[in-house]
Amino acid sequence: WSVQPGQRSLQGVLDSARETGFGPQPDSAECTAAGRTDAGVHATGQTVHLDVVGGGPAADIQKRLNALLPEDVKVTGCREVADDFHARFQCLAKEYVYKVANTNVAPVLERRFIHFERRHVELAPLREAAAFLEGEHDFKGFTNAGRDTEGSVRLIHRVRVRRRDGELEFMFLGKGFLYNQVRVMVGTILDIGLGKKSPSLITEILSSGERSLAGDTMPAKGLTLTRTIYAGDKQEERLA
Amino acid sequence: WSVQPGQRSLQGVLDSARETGFGPQPDSAECTAAGRTDAGVHATGQTVHLDVVGGGPAADIQKRLNALLPEDVKVTGCREVADDFHARFQCLAKEYVYKVANTNVAPVLERRFIHFERRHVELAPLREAAAFLEGEHDFKGFTNAGRDTEGSVRLIHRVRVRRRDGELEFMFLGKGFLYNQVRVMVGTILDIGLGKKSPSLITEILSSGERSLAGDTMPAKGLTLTRTIYAGDKQEERLA
Repeated sequence: WSVQPGQRSLQGVLDSARETGFGPQPDSAECTAAGRTDAGVHATGQTVHLDVVGGGPAADIQKRLNALLPEDVKVTGCREVADDFHARFQCLAKEYVYKVANTNVAPVLERRFIHFERRHVELAPLREAAAFLEGEHDFKGFTNAGRDTEGSVRLIHRVRVRRRDGELEFMFLGKGFLYNQVRVMVGTILDIGLGKKSPSLITEILSSGERSLAGDTMPAKGLTLTRTIYAGDKQEERLA
Repeated sequence: WSVQPGQRSLQGVLDSARETGFGPQPDSAECTAAGRTDAGVHATGQTVHLDVVGGGPAADIQKRLNALLPEDVKVTGCREVADDFHARFQCLAKEYVYKVANTNVAPVLERRFIHFERRHVELAPLREAAAFLEGEHDFKGFTNAGRDTEGSVRLIHRVRVRRRDGELEFMFLGKGFLYNQVRVMVGTILDIGLGKKSPSLITEILSSGERSLAGDTMPAKGLTLTRTIYAGDKQEERLA
């Protein structure tokens, strides 16, 4: 997401489409996303707020931005919000989905969006492990970040694991996540599904905060930010 | 599909994996596909026959080929066949699917596998047009090829058009298709769905053989070879 010198980023691409479409904009009006996704992570449910000076109705702004955006970035919906709306601070929860193809043959057409694991993954221990992650915990052991100014306690509303046609899908719904947290959690519970570790490892990592006990950071490409939930959304009831 | 000097092809990639995996093979043992797909066309249901000298059981051959194949080409199933089996000559029918995103916003994650059409497509006239294509006809007006030694009469068992979440899917089941035939047929019936032409245009093209009356050749990326049907397959009943 974030602008970084010499690199292509979603924020940079959006800011420049806005400037091309609507002329120079005040600095303070930078595009702001609910979740600042890392390189290689996909997003189908991202929310971004941006000020547009002289843009006209929301539908026109969407159309003009999409005409200027590259083929791998599109605005799927657009509406006017209150002046004090903030995509990140007001986001109640985010949903991330991690996909793993647990098949004999590596997926071909979907390969940019799914991780491949040939060894058989057992669902029961994996689900037992996943359940330990739900609730409010200190997730220090599941992040690759250094100390965070906001601490490392986070609330996970729900973790769901399912298998469909050889495809494992890990869904995490939470208020917010630490740097690489979802990818480290998936790496850890996948090890448990592969029989390399037992489900109780999760509680051990949660109580010790020891990153070295957790599994590998899964590759970015399997991860998608699928939803961002705000007050008044239909999805809000899922947080109860 | 076909090997062409200086270009990457499925046949070339498969032949070279076979040679790397199992040593030099007799020339006559070239990989042969049911349908020789053009550049940019996808295949999820292709069938290929190949001779392997000293390969062992089919499951081992599949595994070894897949380990050597690049990430965009995989063998999804493998079994031993009779010596006289021929993937192309014995193929009873092929199913192709063409996908069009008929939405306001261009698809992002699926963009390599789907054509984008923003203007509203009306299904009723399009289906009326599609029905005229079923049966045995001279499809000379729907191909970009010159004269074919086998003539231009082909049998189409079924054409089905459906819309799902803004995605139009055109399915063609036929014994065989002329060069670019499916892409020209889709281009033509899409014009009818857009109200530019009337369904009776199809009968006009079929009787006159006039390529200039038909629509544009749709881009390759929207097309996928989804099935190849042989005697004894469960799918065979669809040809009755």
